[in-house]
Amino acid sequence: MSEFTHLNEQGEAHMVDVGDKDITERSARATAIVKMQPTTLKMILDGSHKKGDVLATCRIAGIMAAKKCPDLIPLCHTLLLTSVKVELHPEPDNSGIRITSFCKLSGKTGVEMEALTAVSVAALTLYDMCKAVDKGMVISDVKLVEKSGGRSGHWQAEG
Amino acid sequence: MSEFTHLNEQGEAHMVDVGDKDITERSARATAIVKMQPTTLKMILDGSHKKGDVLATCRIAGIMAAKKCPDLIPLCHTLLLTSVKVELHPEPDNSGIRITSFCKLSGKTGVEMEALTAVSVAALTLYDMCKAVDKGMVISDVKLVEKSGGRSGHWQAEG
Amino acid sequence: MSEFTHLNEQGEAHMVDVGDKDITERSARATAIVKMQPTTLKMILDGSHKKGDVLATCRIAGIMAAKKCPDLIPLCHTLLLTSVKVELHPEPDNSGIRITSFCKLSGKTGVEMEALTAVSVAALTLYDMCKAVDKGMVISDVKLVEKSGGRSGHWQAEG
Amino acid sequence: MSEFTHLNEQGEAHMVDVGDKDITERSARATAIVKMQPTTLKMILDGSHKKGDVLATCRIAGIMAAKKCPDLIPLCHTLLLTSVKVELHPEPDNSGIRITSFCKLSGKTGVEMEALTAVSVAALTLYDMCKAVDKGMVISDVKLVEKSGGRSGHWQAEG
Amino acid sequence: MSEFTHLNEQGEAHMVDVGDKDITERSARATAIVKMQPTTLKMILDGSHKKGDVLATCRIAGIMAAKKCPDLIPLCHTLLLTSVKVELHPEPDNSGIRITSFCKLSGKTGVEMEALTAVSVAALTLYDMCKAVDKGMVISDVKLVEKSGGRSGHWQAEG
Amino acid sequence: MSEFTHLNEQGEAHMVDVGDKDITERSARATAIVKMQPTTLKMILDGSHKKGDVLATCRIAGIMAAKKCPDLIPLCHTLLLTSVKVELHPEPDNSGIRITSFCKLSGKTGVEMEALTAVSVAALTLYDMCKAVDKGMVISDVKLVEKSGGRSGHWQAEG
Repeated sequence: MSEFTHLNEQGEAHMVDVGDKDITERSARATAIVKMQPTTLKMILDGSHKKGDVLATCRIAGIMAAKKCPDLIPLCHTLLLTSVKVELHPEPDNSGIRITSFCKLSGKTGVEMEALTAVSVAALTLYDMCKAVDKGMVISDVKLVEKSGGRSGHWQAEG
Repeated sequence: MSEFTHLNEQGEAHMVDVGDKDITERSARATAIVKMQPTTLKMILDGSHKKGDVLATCRIAGIMAAKKCPDLIPLCHTLLLTSVKVELHPEPDNSGIRITSFCKLSGKTGVEMEALTAVSVAALTLYDMCKAVDKGMVISDVKLVEKSGGRSGHWQAEG
Repeated sequence: MSEFTHLNEQGEAHMVDVGDKDITERSARATAIVKMQPTTLKMILDGSHKKGDVLATCRIAGIMAAKKCPDLIPLCHTLLLTSVKVELHPEPDNSGIRITSFCKLSGKTGVEMEALTAVSVAALTLYDMCKAVDKGMVISDVKLVEKSGGRSGHWQAEG
Repeated sequence: MSEFTHLNEQGEAHMVDVGDKDITERSARATAIVKMQPTTLKMILDGSHKKGDVLATCRIAGIMAAKKCPDLIPLCHTLLLTSVKVELHPEPDNSGIRITSFCKLSGKTGVEMEALTAVSVAALTLYDMCKAVDKGMVISDVKLVEKSGGRSGHWQAEG
Repeated sequence: MSEFTHLNEQGEAHMVDVGDKDITERSARATAIVKMQPTTLKMILDGSHKKGDVLATCRIAGIMAAKKCPDLIPLCHTLLLTSVKVELHPEPDNSGIRITSFCKLSGKTGVEMEALTAVSVAALTLYDMCKAVDKGMVISDVKLVEKSGGRSGHWQAEG
Repeated sequence: MSEFTHLNEQGEAHMVDVGDKDITERSARATAIVKMQPTTLKMILDGSHKKGDVLATCRIAGIMAAKKCPDLIPLCHTLLLTSVKVELHPEPDNSGIRITSFCKLSGKTGVEMEALTAVSVAALTLYDMCKAVDKGMVISDVKLVEKSGGRSGHWQAEG
C-alpha cells in the first residue's frame, strides 16, 4: 500500500514535489447534499423570482472557493483551473439540495481538492443563507465522484 | 415562520444589517466525521510519532479557515474571534475520525459559520493528506451542535 | 486647508492613527454607472429567468469586495462592517446600469472606501460577464454620494 | 450576436471552460481618470519630494490588485501575469490624474480584467489618500483601451 | 515559568481564548536590519528622485503585511489596528538599512506579531527589489523593541 | 553593474516583464535562525509528544506563506510552485532553532522570494508560539543559501 505522500520520512508535512509529473488534462467531479426541514426546502424553491439569489449565491461561493483552495488546504499546490461548474438540484425525496461541482485543468496535479472545496463552501453558504429558519441543516456525503488524468488515471466512486 | 434574512424584499442578496444588535458573548460548536477504510484509519493512528503531522495539519487548517470565513461565505460579517479550537478524535467503530470545533467571540453576530467552516476545512485537509491511499473517503454529518448568545439564545441540535 | 492625512511630515505613507477617534455610527453611499451598447443592455434585461445570474453575481462580488477593502487599499484600516447593500438598476436613457452601494459600521473610521470599492468591483464584474459581447463598456461616475458619522459629520455630493 | 459566455443554458453562472484555448501572448491596456478640485491636484503635484508617496502608493496598489483579480471577480481564471505596469499622469486641463495600466501574459485567457482592476484600484487608492481634502473626487472613463492575442485578436477602443 | 499558551494539555495547537481579557490600549515597536554591499546601499540612496519607489514600496508592503498577520501566523487573532507606521533609515556604518515598525490598537490582544510581520515583509520587499544586484543581502535582528498594554504591561528589549 | 530591475527609467516601481524568459527548472534554498533563551529551547524540545505541534505549526505556516508570496511582496509574480519544504532543527550551541526552506518550480521567474518568505513566516510563527515565555527571541541570518535555474544560473552564498 502506498504511503502518505504529504509526509517525509520523519513524518513531517511538506508540499509534495510534482516537478517530474507530466502536464496532462485532469478533471474531478464532487458532490454533497444539504439536508433540511421540508418547509425550508419549500421556502427555497417557492417563488423562484423572490428566492433566486439563494442558489446563485451558493454557486458563486463554490466557484470562488475552488480558486482559493491553495489558501485553505495547507499542502495543496497553486494551480490554474480551466473550468469550474457548481450546480444545485433539489432532491425532495431526500428533503435536501444536492450540490455537484466539476473542475478541470491542464497541469501537474489533480483537481480533486478544488472540486471538494467547491461543494463544501457552496453547502456552507446554503447553510448560512437558511440558518435563520433552520439551524439543524446537515451537510453530508461530501465526496469525490470521479476523477480523470494524471498517473492514477480514471477513478470512480463505488456504489 | 421567519423569512430568509439574507434576501431583501426583491429576493436580492445583501449582508444583513446587524448595527442594532447587542454585543454579547457568543459561541458555537460544530462537528463532522470523515469516514475511511479501516486500513487508512490504522495508518493515521499507527506510529503517532511518524504520522503526527497529519492531525496537526488538520487542526491548523481548521483554525485558519475559521478566520477566513468572511472571505469564503459571501454574506458573512467580518468578526473578531476570541477563541478557536479544533479537535480530531478517531472513532474506530465508525471507521472514521470525528472533528469538532469551538468558536467564541464577543460581538454582534453569531459564530456558527466560523465553527462549521473550521470543521469543513479540517475535514478537507484530512482528505487531502490521505487521498493517495483512499480516494473514497466521505465527509458527513457536518452540523452545528450547539450555539449560545445573541437574540436567539441557546440552541442545541436534536438527537 | 487640511493636509494629506496619509503622509507624515517627510511625505511617507502611513496608516493614520485613529486610536483617539470616537466609536460612532458611520455610513456611506456610493454610486457608479456602467455604460454599454443598447443591445447589451437589452440582453441583460431580456429573459430575467435566463440572465438572472448576471446581476446576482455583480451584487455578490460587490459585497465581498467591501470586506476585502483593507487588502486592496494599502492604507485602509481593517474594520467590522455591520451592513453592506449593492443594487443594480437599468437606466435605459443612459444606455447603462446604475450601481449603488451602502455600507455601515459602528467604529473609529469611515466606510467611504468600502462603499466605493463595492460599486467598483460590482461594475468590473458586470464588465467581465458582458465583455464577450461588448468590450467597449465604460465605467463612469464612481463617486461618493453621501456619508454620515465621524468627526466630519454628514456630507453629501453636490449636484 | 454572441451569447454571454459566463452563463450556461439555464442562465447559471460558471467559470468558462478555456481548456481548449491556445496558449498565446496576450496583453491589455486600460485607463481611468480621477477628477478633483484644482487645489487638490496642485497639492499632489507640489513638492514632489514631500508628496512622492501618493503616486507610488497608487502604483503599488494597482499592481497588487491586478494579481488579486481572480479573488475579486468571481468568474475570472487564476493566471500568471508576466508583466504589470501602472502609470499616473496629471492632466491639468481635465483637473485630474490619468491612470493607465498594461498587463501581459502567455496563457489561455485574456488579461482585460486584470488591466481594468489595476486602474480601478489605483484610482480608489488615490481617492483614499486625498479624501480628507476632497471628498467629491470622481473616477470616470474606466475602460479598456486595447487588447491583443487570443481568438478575438487585436481590439482597440473607438475614439 | 509560564507554559506555552498556544498548546492545550495534549500539546495540540489552538487559538488562545482572549475572551476574558480587558480591552486596553496596546502598542508594539519592532525592528530589523537588511545588510548589503556598500555599492547596493549607495545605489538605493543615490538619486533619491530616481530610486524613490524602492523605499516607498517597502513601506507599503510592511503596512499591508501588518494587516495580513492573522492570515500568515496560524494562531494570531484577527484584530483592528488603529495605527501602523514603517520607517526605513540607512545605516552606512552597518552597510545596511534599518527598518522599524510601530503598531497600535485598542483590543484584547497585543500587536507584537503585527509589528514583527511588518518589518519582516518590508525587509523581504527590499531584498526583492535589490536582488538583481545583490543576492547576498541578509536580514537580521528581527526583534521586538518595546510593547505596552495588556496584562504583561510594558516590556522593553535589553541592550 | 546591473540596474534595479523593478524600477523603470523614471524610478517608478513595476512588475518586471518576464514574458521573454525561458521556462526552466528553478529552485532556491533559504535559511534563518531564531535565537532564544536556553530554557525556551529546552521547553520546545522537551517532551516531543506534548510540544509536537510547535514545530508542525511553524512548518505549515512556512509552506502556506510560500504560496502567499505574490500577495505579500508587491512586485513578485504569481507562480506555480512544484515543491515546498520547511525544516526546523535545534542548534543548542547557538541556543536557537535553524529554519531552512526549499522551493522549486518550472517557470519564468526564480523562487528566491518564496524560499525567503517561507523561512521568515515560519520564524515569526515560532516567535508567536513562544512569546509568552520569551519576548526577547531574535530572528537573524534570513538569507538565500543557494539558487539554480534561470538566466543567472547557479548561485551560492559565500562563507
